[in-house]
Amino acid sequence: MSTSILDRTLDRPTVRPASAPLAPAQDRSPQDLLDAFRTVRAHTEALAAPLSAEDQVVQSMPDASPTKWHRAHTTWFFEEFLLVPHAPNYRRYDDRLAYLYNSYYVQAGPRHARPKRGLITRPDVAEVSAYRAHVDRAVEALLHGAEGSLAEEIASIVTIGLNHEQQHQELILTDILHAFSENPCAPVYDAAWAAPKSMRSGDKVHLPEAIHTIGHTGEGFCYDNEGPAHRELVGPASVDKSLVTNGEWLAFIADGGYQRPTLWLSDGWATVAAEGWQAPGYWQQEADGAWRAMTLGGLREVDPDAPVCHVSYYEADAFARWAGRHLPSEAEWEVAARSGALSDAHGVVWQWTRSAYSPYPGFRPVEGAIGEYNGKFMVNQMVLRGSSLATPAGHARDTYRNFFPPAARWQFTGLRLSDAA
Amino acid sequence: MSTSILDRTLDRPTVRPASAPLAPAQDRSPQDLLDAFRTVRAHTEALAAPLSAEDQVVQSMPDASPTKWHRAHTTWFFEEFLLVPHAPNYRRYDDRLAYLYNSYYVQAGPRHARPKRGLITRPDVAEVSAYRAHVDRAVEALLHGAEGSLAEEIASIVTIGLNHEQQHQELILTDILHAFSENPCAPVYDAAWAAPKSMRSGDKVHLPEAIHTIGHTGEGFCYDNEGPAHRELVGPASVDKSLVTNGEWLAFIADGGYQRPTLWLSDGWATVAAEGWQAPGYWQQEADGAWRAMTLGGLREVDPDAPVCHVSYYEADAFARWAGRHLPSEAEWEVAARSGALSDAHGVVWQWTRSAYSPYPGFRPVEGAIGEYNGKFMVNQMVLRGSSLATPAGHARDTYRNFFPPAARWQFTGLRLSDAA
Amino acid sequence: MSTSILDRTLDRPTVRPASAPLAPAQDRSPQDLLDAFRTVRAHTEALAAPLSAEDQVVQSMPDASPTKWHRAHTTWFFEEFLLVPHAPNYRRYDDRLAYLYNSYYVQAGPRHARPKRGLITRPDVAEVSAYRAHVDRAVEALLHGAEGSLAEEIASIVTIGLNHEQQHQELILTDILHAFSENPCAPVYDAAWAAPKSMRSGDKVHLPEAIHTIGHTGEGFCYDNEGPAHRELVGPASVDKSLVTNGEWLAFIADGGYQRPTLWLSDGWATVAAEGWQAPGYWQQEADGAWRAMTLGGLREVDPDAPVCHVSYYEADAFARWAGRHLPSEAEWEVAARSGALSDAHGVVWQWTRSAYSPYPGFRPVEGAIGEYNGKFMVNQMVLRGSSLATPAGHARDTYRNFFPPAARWQFTGLRLSDAA
Amino acid sequence: MSTSILDRTLDRPTVRPASAPLAPAQDRSPQDLLDAFRTVRAHTEALAAPLSAEDQVVQSMPDASPTKWHRAHTTWFFEEFLLVPHAPNYRRYDDRLAYLYNSYYVQAGPRHARPKRGLITRPDVAEVSAYRAHVDRAVEALLHGAEGSLAEEIASIVTIGLNHEQQHQELILTDILHAFSENPCAPVYDAAWAAPKSMRSGDKVHLPEAIHTIGHTGEGFCYDNEGPAHRELVGPASVDKSLVTNGEWLAFIADGGYQRPTLWLSDGWATVAAEGWQAPGYWQQEADGAWRAMTLGGLREVDPDAPVCHVSYYEADAFARWAGRHLPSEAEWEVAARSGALSDAHGVVWQWTRSAYSPYPGFRPVEGAIGEYNGKFMVNQMVLRGSSLATPAGHARDTYRNFFPPAARWQFTGLRLSDAA
Repeated sequence: MSTSILDRTLDRPTVRPASAPLAPAQDRSPQDLLDAFRTVRAHTEALAAPLSAEDQVVQSMPDASPTKWHRAHTTWFFEEFLLVPHAPNYRRYDDRLAYLYNSYYVQAGPRHARPKRGLITRPDVAEVSAYRAHVDRAVEALLHGAEGSLAEEIASIVTIGLNHEQQHQELILTDILHAFSENPCAPVYDAAWAAPKSMRSGDKVHLPEAIHTIGHTGEGFCYDNEGPAHRELVGPASVDKSLVTNGEWLAFIADGGYQRPTLWLSDGWATVAAEGWQAPGYWQQEADGAWRAMTLGGLREVDPDAPVCHVSYYEADAFARWAGRHLPSEAEWEVAARSGALSDAHGVVWQWTRSAYSPYPGFRPVEGAIGEYNGKFMVNQMVLRGSSLATPAGHARDTYRNFFPPAARWQFTGLRLSDAA
Repeated sequence: MSTSILDRTLDRPTVRPASAPLAPAQDRSPQDLLDAFRTVRAHTEALAAPLSAEDQVVQSMPDASPTKWHRAHTTWFFEEFLLVPHAPNYRRYDDRLAYLYNSYYVQAGPRHARPKRGLITRPDVAEVSAYRAHVDRAVEALLHGAEGSLAEEIASIVTIGLNHEQQHQELILTDILHAFSENPCAPVYDAAWAAPKSMRSGDKVHLPEAIHTIGHTGEGFCYDNEGPAHRELVGPASVDKSLVTNGEWLAFIADGGYQRPTLWLSDGWATVAAEGWQAPGYWQQEADGAWRAMTLGGLREVDPDAPVCHVSYYEADAFARWAGRHLPSEAEWEVAARSGALSDAHGVVWQWTRSAYSPYPGFRPVEGAIGEYNGKFMVNQMVLRGSSLATPAGHARDTYRNFFPPAARWQFTGLRLSDAA
Repeated sequence: MSTSILDRTLDRPTVRPASAPLAPAQDRSPQDLLDAFRTVRAHTEALAAPLSAEDQVVQSMPDASPTKWHRAHTTWFFEEFLLVPHAPNYRRYDDRLAYLYNSYYVQAGPRHARPKRGLITRPDVAEVSAYRAHVDRAVEALLHGAEGSLAEEIASIVTIGLNHEQQHQELILTDILHAFSENPCAPVYDAAWAAPKSMRSGDKVHLPEAIHTIGHTGEGFCYDNEGPAHRELVGPASVDKSLVTNGEWLAFIADGGYQRPTLWLSDGWATVAAEGWQAPGYWQQEADGAWRAMTLGGLREVDPDAPVCHVSYYEADAFARWAGRHLPSEAEWEVAARSGALSDAHGVVWQWTRSAYSPYPGFRPVEGAIGEYNGKFMVNQMVLRGSSLATPAGHARDTYRNFFPPAARWQFTGLRLSDAA
Repeated sequence: MSTSILDRTLDRPTVRPASAPLAPAQDRSPQDLLDAFRTVRAHTEALAAPLSAEDQVVQSMPDASPTKWHRAHTTWFFEEFLLVPHAPNYRRYDDRLAYLYNSYYVQAGPRHARPKRGLITRPDVAEVSAYRAHVDRAVEALLHGAEGSLAEEIASIVTIGLNHEQQHQELILTDILHAFSENPCAPVYDAAWAAPKSMRSGDKVHLPEAIHTIGHTGEGFCYDNEGPAHRELVGPASVDKSLVTNGEWLAFIADGGYQRPTLWLSDGWATVAAEGWQAPGYWQQEADGAWRAMTLGGLREVDPDAPVCHVSYYEADAFARWAGRHLPSEAEWEVAARSGALSDAHGVVWQWTRSAYSPYPGFRPVEGAIGEYNGKFMVNQMVLRGSSLATPAGHARDTYRNFFPPAARWQFTGLRLSDAA
């Protein structure tokens, strides 16, 4: 996910410039934008609401961030890129927060800063709430008063900021789940949590060989890695309509899936050995052999009919080899999804593809403004397509290119299979 | 400090058995014991009072523990070793706390448990407070009712538990200082904090060659590493009455102390290089060259007249070599301190000696009961003598053997010098 | 290079089965095969001839192997897969060698075996020479006597074995160069060594958008990763006819190429920092600012007109970004090379492409026989195309897919640039 | 052993200055010195004689050095400290050797140089032999012609150089044994090798409490860490006359010695777990349960009556705890050995003491000349006393203080036990 771009180093989104036809924020009415702003900002607070001050400060691994950090960093984004340049007489809430939650802090100590986010006990969560309120008031005032080309530019920045915040909303959930999974008491984030319903179907989508345009071509916001749209020869291939389930994964485990090196990529097998993997992330086996998994609703029995989640690319690849199948390429996935024939393309789990995360032909980094430099993660990562149960409403697209290293599994990641013809 | 014995692995104190003449807890009146219990327990809470829930949950490095953990663990000690065996009808407050804060938890996952104490956001600080109140009530009830030999045994266990808690009181301060030092905002633990006054004197204590008894011989509580008392030939030596000061340390820095490998032990020089040490722990140099140090009162200017603090054994040894002097042996320190001639023997900084932490002749681990097994840290560590500004009143002894690895410097550690004759 | 497949774990080549139309070893006359066998085997010995016993035993890093090991392992291959199953009455030269130089040894201790190849001082080089002679005699005898379908199978195995040995011939050179580069005396492997002449041209090959068949389709030997041949939409793109030169690289250095993070992939920049890279591998700057490079001919001045060598993918990618260009995809490279328009496609340096090393659509591991399991390296590596000065005559193909991790630079690796249209 | 001082960093011995009464080299006649020179130099060559060029180049771990390096470095010592300053018209054999084998080379790249000694294939062993002959001729010529005070100084330097070379003679054996132990073929250094005969006795030497002088007081050469001689109160203690045997160690193993954490120091237990120790170094258990050990004579059955060898301090300490005994202090060992009552004090195995390696009271580094700076290893190491089967004749002393980190076990190290009274 492009959030990785933000968090791992630059803490800035990399997007197409506002003037590009792909991001026509200017088509939104001012009131629409204000509503969107309030909705997205309120959703972040709703996600944090079940969490205590202690919950919000911890960082359970370098790739995760504290809830408090997510809440403050997304706020700093509006302060830094919208209010400071465009809001007359705006005064920063507190220079310390600008320092703690911006990217310069990260750049100043690249090796230390990020893994130490969990040590920032002060300012506390109450102060972060006050910071959010302060910035919200100023943004809303700015939106009310803007006109003309300034309004367009503001709309564009707000649109970016909201997409940015939506990415962090998913991370708030993945990161707190990881933190809670490290607690022997298995805390419950949301007792009413339930896995999303998924659709099952034995059918496949058949893709005959054809030239398709891949990448974002329509209107509306997209990230820069979704372009340039380009022509690609796709197929023949057949993509499963359904996601791989826990039940199928249990068969893989029962068949020695985690014990047979010939099923694995060499780097994958080394990871299995080093990490002691025996099952998907967050799974644990009871004394009676039953499997339970840590979820946002606490420890729950593994449902064989639900799509498997928290598997790495290495595991997805090994499972496909075991099944005598393949993972789809990202182009196959996009064409199949666009046809409308896939079940659970969105809203359940991100789906690993067999495509390495590479630039589309002709891709060039955006210069200047918010979108500083780009493409810097386009090596050593694999593309995931679709979206997950944790992706906020309105944030999913068929052209969305999420990406993670092949060993990552704390995200909501699963898979569907395909065949070459 | 023997707390290391507790925290680093077993989380149990290693003490002489209650029946030994060195720990005559039975001489205390029941009321004295009750008063001591209340005083010590209240002091822990007073130390935690300035800290928010977020402050109390963080663990800034594997050797440190969260405040919340210290508060709960010391409470678990009374529950486990006093209430469960001796209080009729006592019911544990919560099995989860017994699990999280006892040593079995540590043993169950030796490589993971300790460094992950900072991830335990739940139970929260309020629940830990309730746990402490629950246990306090039960202990006080037990103390009121106990008689005869049971009273003696209870008194002995309470005495051990209070000494145990006092060790953790010092660690609460050293550990929160370390956590705050990692925060670029340099939080203040106690705005009224001031370094202890120290005494300066150019004089030395001269110790002619003589046989002395070293180790604990009197009455009252002591740790098992303080015995057996034994005869040792000490001197001739001269021990400085005063501690080394920041001003003297600044001269060492100015003379290239941190740049000259010939001043350092080989392992020390490797540590200087690996850690980039240029000054004592928590020191930072301003743009104008002035030094400030992170303290419990926040960032403060370095006072040249105050004793230097937060130096490792490697630094203490290098400083002594630079000065053409030595560190005293622990026996020299003990004889000099016992003579009453040392300034600041106690209450300012722990003082590195040149003695490796080894068993006294004839030392044997205590078997059974609370004092399980022992002496397991008697390698790769150096002895410190005295006590520090953070050592609770009543916890210091001239025979006390604190110990840390030669690279440690997050404790309140300084030095005094000596000569061989 | 598929050698990686061999060496890094399995020490077996992964090839299309002998029955496949792509490997028509049977078309060779017996005399041709015998001549080829003698030529290839003799070339290995010629490569080792300038090296002392001491030179042949060292292993300068885990990814490299000793010359002695290469000589023995390629011999063991013929013993294990040809002589033991097919040569009547063949007796192994020595079970110890079969143990030391086969893949079971590697599998037995995956973490230790490979990095410790340099500790095998005995058997010594003389014994390895005797081993080679013993096996050569037996193979030649077998080739003389074989007829019919057995002759075909033997021919197929010999063909595989010779391709295998040719891969190791290149590694003998890359590995000894690395070992010599670690010696402050900069030993000379071959005083008469000279960089291959390269052709310069400002022109580009223009590739209009078209569907091409990519992968091996013709007759003759190929590795399994070169198939299945498949249709792919390639272009529009323009590929430079010439390789990037040292002179162009010096301009990159002079322009701060190694100091500007915005030019680099995130993982690449981390590698630059960790490794302290300031120039291509084996380069060192003299006191007067001139650059010299360690070569097979010892330390030589860097020739600005020669193609740059010993650059990693990270460096190639950064250079392309700095130049406002791209690296070609492997399909673009293959189409351009097939057109015959590229200068120095072969025989100078392997050329990094922007393609991650992935399976071709429909790729499946070969089952059984020599080609055990496959594709296990198809993650976290980048494809290189062409061949290098160290590639033996007759071993290069336009469809050859060499691959290495993006940080590797001890191979003879360079680049050419392209544009998207 | 002070060799550690030489090898690990400075490659210079640290000795008392020639003018000190403890090193009266001047009492030797010129002919005695010449004889000693020839004997010691020839012994080094005799030790290397069974080793091939390949054997002599390998370095099997960072703490070990190649045989070739030992041979060249000891030669460089005479060139650098004797010939260059004192031999008129002496010309260095080759500046490259002076560079490769002196300490400046080590200092230039402290992190890389030492572990990479095994990569120096050129100059080869023949050239090192020529270097030795060149220096031997020059030294002998110098010894013939020297007179007066110059003769005294030369005699002193030669004495130091010979002691230095004797230390390396022991290391040649320990290091090649380690290298051979890494070879699955278990090469034999000397087929006629036999473990030294040891004496068994159930008796103890009783040491009543008394003040003794500890350290070197007599005439003849000693290292600076053997002084200052000083008075120390020793005893009451009882030291076993015999060494601990393999048979006793087998009983320790059978009793779960390597599985019971309560027997071990905390750091020791961590090492057992990390290294997977189950028995002394070089031991391996056959399928039938019998133990064999890698020796200079190849794999040999473990003799229950022979003294145990290749145990670390951690193991020695655990064994003593298991036996309800102690290790002697180094002072106890010295007093007991001086009494003549110990069996196998010398010539079998170095014996771990419970004494950390610390400076004697009043110890000061020697300034200037050969003995540059000193005492730099006096932390994190334990003292061993006596000498081993590999210690050259004439090199052992009762005051000799060998030292190694507590986890080291590639030296010939064993133990004897003691009691506190």
